[in-house]
Amino acid sequence: MAIIVQKYGGSSVADIEKIKKVAEKVVNCHKNGNKVVVVVSAMGKTTDNLINLAKQITSNPPTKEMDLLLSTGELVSVALLCIAIENLGFEAEGLPGFLAGIKTDNTHTKAKIRTVDTTRIIEELKKGKIVVVAGFQGISAEDSITTLGRGGSDLTAIAIAGAIKAEICEIYTDVPGVFTADPNIVPDARIIPVISYKEMLEMASAGAKVMQSRAVEFAQKYHIPFLVKSTFVDDGGTMVTEVDFKEGAVVSSVALDENQAKITFFNVPDRPGVAAKIFGKLGEASINVDVIVQNVSTHGYTDLSFTVNISEFEKAFEIAKKLGKELKCKDVTSDTNIAKITVIGLGMMNHPGVAARMFKALADSGVNIEMISTSEIKISCIIKKEEGQKALKAVHKEFIK
Amino acid sequence: MAIIVQKYGGSSVADIEKIKKVAEKVVNCHKNGNKVVVVVSAMGKTTDNLINLAKQITSNPPTKEMDLLLSTGELVSVALLCIAIENLGFEAEGLPGFLAGIKTDNTHTKAKIRTVDTTRIIEELKKGKIVVVAGFQGISAEDSITTLGRGGSDLTAIAIAGAIKAEICEIYTDVPGVFTADPNIVPDARIIPVISYKEMLEMASAGAKVMQSRAVEFAQKYHIPFLVKSTFVDDGGTMVTEVDFKEGAVVSSVALDENQAKITFFNVPDRPGVAAKIFGKLGEASINVDVIVQNVSTHGYTDLSFTVNISEFEKAFEIAKKLGKELKCKDVTSDTNIAKITVIGLGMMNHPGVAARMFKALADSGVNIEMISTSEIKISCIIKKEEGQKALKAVHKEFIK
Repeated sequence: MAIIVQKYGGSSVADIEKIKKVAEKVVNCHKNGNKVVVVVSAMGKTTDNLINLAKQITSNPPTKEMDLLLSTGELVSVALLCIAIENLGFEAEGLPGFLAGIKTDNTHTKAKIRTVDTTRIIEELKKGKIVVVAGFQGISAEDSITTLGRGGSDLTAIAIAGAIKAEICEIYTDVPGVFTADPNIVPDARIIPVISYKEMLEMASAGAKVMQSRAVEFAQKYHIPFLVKSTFVDDGGTMVTEVDFKEGAVVSSVALDENQAKITFFNVPDRPGVAAKIFGKLGEASINVDVIVQNVSTHGYTDLSFTVNISEFEKAFEIAKKLGKELKCKDVTSDTNIAKITVIGLGMMNHPGVAARMFKALADSGVNIEMISTSEIKISCIIKKEEGQKALKAVHKEFIK
Repeated sequence: MAIIVQKYGGSSVADIEKIKKVAEKVVNCHKNGNKVVVVVSAMGKTTDNLINLAKQITSNPPTKEMDLLLSTGELVSVALLCIAIENLGFEAEGLPGFLAGIKTDNTHTKAKIRTVDTTRIIEELKKGKIVVVAGFQGISAEDSITTLGRGGSDLTAIAIAGAIKAEICEIYTDVPGVFTADPNIVPDARIIPVISYKEMLEMASAGAKVMQSRAVEFAQKYHIPFLVKSTFVDDGGTMVTEVDFKEGAVVSSVALDENQAKITFFNVPDRPGVAAKIFGKLGEASINVDVIVQNVSTHGYTDLSFTVNISEFEKAFEIAKKLGKELKCKDVTSDTNIAKITVIGLGMMNHPGVAARMFKALADSGVNIEMISTSEIKISCIIKKEEGQKALKAVHKEFIK
């Protein structure tokens, strides 16, 4: 008998009516002869409300206590979903993370899963029960409640699916799958039926908001296929799995990230160790640098630009200005009026000319490229923010049939 | 170094401002050189809100899931109180019931504490931390989250105090102690400084709403003295402990219970087994019978009256009417217009004449007695409901100086 792991996010269990509908879906899967393990997030705004309570005491609450506080949100969803399942006449067993065997390290608010002990889950499945597990949480070797950080419930589901050797892990969310581009901007965008882990990872860093990288990385590492699907719409769905690059689409999707900011050092001394110093300092401050471009050196000096997420821009610019003085640069400037457009596709690896087609599509629609960054399976261009949506449509039209 | 267990009820942690004040009290106790273990209830209306969510799914939610659901309320209080304590510069360790070693049986929604394993609590105290424990909850041998029922947090505090051999257990609440009578009715009522477990137990069953019997019974059984005191008023407090009846007040308190209803069987055949049949049937339906009075038998028939709590009256009256037919009684009647007035005092045991003084005080103020029930240390009279408050004042004046 197949084991299926289903994960329902906060918007899928946002109120009692939705919880009842989720219970029906879960029960249907069970009635179809599957053993079902369900992972749930906290209801809608619960986590925000709990954070707000803590912030009324201090703006910087201790992480260990925040974990204990936030872990309650998922427990409420678990209990209510179990009640709804039992109300339909089926047996359910609700398990907090620690009883579901989710063992983590002790890094509070962003703990890493170390092991998943599936003894209890399997025991309850054998009794014919539907097992409902609290996502996002675990317990450390120090016997302290931990949480897994953003996207943590996806991670819980994928880790359990891997440990229990589930047939499939279904990630239910409020979108009907992974799109070739944001359908709010590109009306022609369509759902990608199958995509590789690698492409999903590039999409996450390209600013597509489907899933956090950590859950995808975990699935890739342990070869756990998963399906991204809408909770309340039956059609659609994107299967994320191992795909041979020879079979992959040349370009599977196009993404626009409007939350970027650029910082430029003018006339940096072009000598060894300068870049290391700049990006070392930024790394120490936990700032994630995205696209980096360095010009050809002239007379021993060069210009160096990089982008960061807008949320980290102010901190990064402060550090950059200080470094600029130390390094005796001519100037350090910033530009928050930019966007990043990215094409992603496994097939790029054996189809040359993708970059040229992308640049031509941008040029034909009058979009100027400021910076370029590439990997094996993606090409990103930094452009003016106001040209972002136009660029997305043009590039999508060029590649997605 | 002395260990002090403090328990704060739901009204003491009802909002963030109150939680901050509780944190100050806890920290002061710690600064005075004590090792402090704090037990907290859920914030104000949290439990009611959670019950309400479950009732939106079904009017009769399964008890195991209700326990998981309700246990989250205390966890939120624990986390917030820890944050508030750490914000004052002191280290805190917040523990859910299962990490605090509260092992219970598997009777969901009213589990009994089997053992308290204090290893973890002691470990954290040794590190110099203030330990904050979630009241009302534990874990069963089946590894299922349980709750202890009404008054469960008091029970948690007293059980921990007993297991850890605390110097004292302080029960903080919204009243400044145990009164000689309800001060809302009797303005002269005053706080009793010391009272015995036995008297506290009689008070609970007399309708005084200070504490549930279970916690007091537990304290009595394991000889754990505790102090009932107001969270936000410094004065007052009632010590509940072993008191020799020779030292006890003749009457320590007077209580009025207006939530009583009376059922009377007229002309019951007076033969062996009839009372057993009536109270057996009521017992099977989990109805608690309070005062029972049976008249002298005439011609082989008698009248039998008993009282129940008003909340169980309808169920009890249904059963009584059926039994009345079976037993061929002349009639079965009911009266919800009654109240119970009780005087309690250890000293009664060696001071005869208390009953006579009580009956005279009632008679002098024109109150008619319908039923009487006594134990070693209490006398209860059933009277008309509208005479309850007058009776309470008269009897209080007679006994309490």
